[in-house]
Amino acid sequence: MSESAHATFLGRALELAAEGQTAPNPHVGAVIVRDGVIVGEGFHSHAGAAHAEIAALAAAGDRARGATLYCTLEPCNHHGRTPPCTEAIVRAGITRVVIGCRDPKSHAKMPGRDHLRARGLEVIEGVREDEARELVADFATVALLGRPLVELKSAVTLDGRTATRTGDSKWITGEHARAEAHRLRAHADAILTAIGTVLADDPRLDARLAPTPLSDRKPVRVVVDSALRTPETSQLVTTARTQPTWIAHAPDASVDRATSLASHGVTLLPIDRANDGGGLDLTLLLRELARRDVMRVLVEAGGRLAGALLDAELVDRAAIFVAPVIVGDQEAPGLATRARPPLSLASAVHLERAVGTTHGIDMLVRGHVRTLRW
Amino acid sequence: MSESAHATFLGRALELAAEGQTAPNPHVGAVIVRDGVIVGEGFHSHAGAAHAEIAALAAAGDRARGATLYCTLEPCNHHGRTPPCTEAIVRAGITRVVIGCRDPKSHAKMPGRDHLRARGLEVIEGVREDEARELVADFATVALLGRPLVELKSAVTLDGRTATRTGDSKWITGEHARAEAHRLRAHADAILTAIGTVLADDPRLDARLAPTPLSDRKPVRVVVDSALRTPETSQLVTTARTQPTWIAHAPDASVDRATSLASHGVTLLPIDRANDGGGLDLTLLLRELARRDVMRVLVEAGGRLAGALLDAELVDRAAIFVAPVIVGDQEAPGLATRARPPLSLASAVHLERAVGTTHGIDMLVRGHVRTLRW
Repeated sequence: MSESAHATFLGRALELAAEGQTAPNPHVGAVIVRDGVIVGEGFHSHAGAAHAEIAALAAAGDRARGATLYCTLEPCNHHGRTPPCTEAIVRAGITRVVIGCRDPKSHAKMPGRDHLRARGLEVIEGVREDEARELVADFATVALLGRPLVELKSAVTLDGRTATRTGDSKWITGEHARAEAHRLRAHADAILTAIGTVLADDPRLDARLAPTPLSDRKPVRVVVDSALRTPETSQLVTTARTQPTWIAHAPDASVDRATSLASHGVTLLPIDRANDGGGLDLTLLLRELARRDVMRVLVEAGGRLAGALLDAELVDRAAIFVAPVIVGDQEAPGLATRARPPLSLASAVHLERAVGTTHGIDMLVRGHVRTLRW
Repeated sequence: MSESAHATFLGRALELAAEGQTAPNPHVGAVIVRDGVIVGEGFHSHAGAAHAEIAALAAAGDRARGATLYCTLEPCNHHGRTPPCTEAIVRAGITRVVIGCRDPKSHAKMPGRDHLRARGLEVIEGVREDEARELVADFATVALLGRPLVELKSAVTLDGRTATRTGDSKWITGEHARAEAHRLRAHADAILTAIGTVLADDPRLDARLAPTPLSDRKPVRVVVDSALRTPETSQLVTTARTQPTWIAHAPDASVDRATSLASHGVTLLPIDRANDGGGLDLTLLLRELARRDVMRVLVEAGGRLAGALLDAELVDRAAIFVAPVIVGDQEAPGLATRARPPLSLASAVHLERAVGTTHGIDMLVRGHVRTLRW
């Protein structure tokens, strides 16, 4: 089979993979092909469900014998919640396995690819590898760094303002850009914000403007709020029983406030302060989120939290909407305020693989602040 | 003939029109069509040369009889440097004239369109009118407002910074965006900058990176420099004999400095200070530029001059390059600093007809700050 055919079938597996809501497991898609025809497809839909390979094998049945399996991620070779996929692949009579990217975290003594080769299967690696890695970037970040993948989202004017000096921020961008922003939220496990944004804007941080069925998704709202100043009348608190709200606070915050907020269904996360004596230790907070099966965080906060995350090198991606507007005011709030700003352009954050798209009259620039390799 | 045919032939005239370097005259293109075939084309190439209609009539010769003339701008009906085009059109036997837009400034008692109709020709107006207006927006601005068309150009990071706090600004954008910026310069009659930029960056403000032959164009460099602090060793001064440099200064600036700068070939423009006691009166400066046949100004300056021009409502267009970079510093220089910043988003500058394009890894957003109607 040609390289381009491999790329096509692996591409179909990538498409399938994107359908799942899999945290804390990775997104995986699989396609089984015999004589150039797809005879089975599968994807991992949610934690506890069948792995993609098993779903595809079930769909293919006897037609899997002598067939090629395309899998976005290297098949697992260990006993977790489910038995190892490698065994099922061998048993089904698959003779060739084409893999997008390797598993960033192999629990087994022998990785899946080696096990399959030892059992006589042909294994081809690295087909559409960049896309396959991107698909599991959240899973890999948790596996290798012990924290979720963090994407910084903001909406700014051409001069980088998120509001006027009086705090008017509704709306920088138009409805098309806002719908796209809600789509980004729907793909996140958690939306991270700060108490300043809650007090200024009283946001809902839901995905209601995303296309159906994404609009039904309920990412956790996480508020960085050392002193527990989040009002009980805020939308995040009053809707906490329909869309989870977690509030990260300093250990010395008022127990009464914590009790009141908890009575509304809010989950409280006590987090130690950072060593510099300022806000909460954001690394500890993100670790706690990963422990609670959050793999992907979208940050929607003011310049201070954005700057603190950049300073701590805790930002992996950025998604910045740019509106064709000029405020022309250095005193107006901006995208990010770092405590340790770069003095040279070379040491500023340069987004890699940046892609610009148009949403109504606004632009969206998305790119990588850092790219994890494994 | 169908409307779409009219649009096609007028479109060809628009293409031709863009070739000229016509200040202080408008860009005009003309096409003559008989039996669906182009039999003559022309454009106004420079002040003093034949008008576009006359060039097209000369190319068509006898084939103009009974033909249709497509003209991006209403033909003139007055004696200026050349006789009225309307007479030549009638004399050549043209029976129909299709016009892009009306002349914003008719010197004659009877506009060209009325004269042609009175002589029995069919006149169709408003074909591709927006594009035709855009083509003469500079000419119309001079005619109606007595100043050049002003386009604000800048290159910023996603957080609106033009440099780091230490002044490092080379380069915010990549080579593709810089080449496009030089193309913008080549289409301007003058590049307006401020003494702060000269002292910080010592720019050349030429068009050397534009595609040939645009790279040979030499827009005038105009420096706003109240106290004549421009160094005699600056690139703008040392190259003043090959590409004109004009320095606008306050009437009370040092006569010695003025004499020294003039000895390098610099042209000095004494301009009164604004009533608010700060910098030069920018309206007076722009009027002086128009008087010197500058129709189109590209502003490449720091936030202060950009802000002052916005405050004075002297900006017509903006062309902002946005690089996928985040500085994260509120103290770093920004795109524009207005003395009277908007307090609400509604009163901020919203670019109309904004269009985003990609240049390498950077984006360019261009739009109208204000649109002149006539």
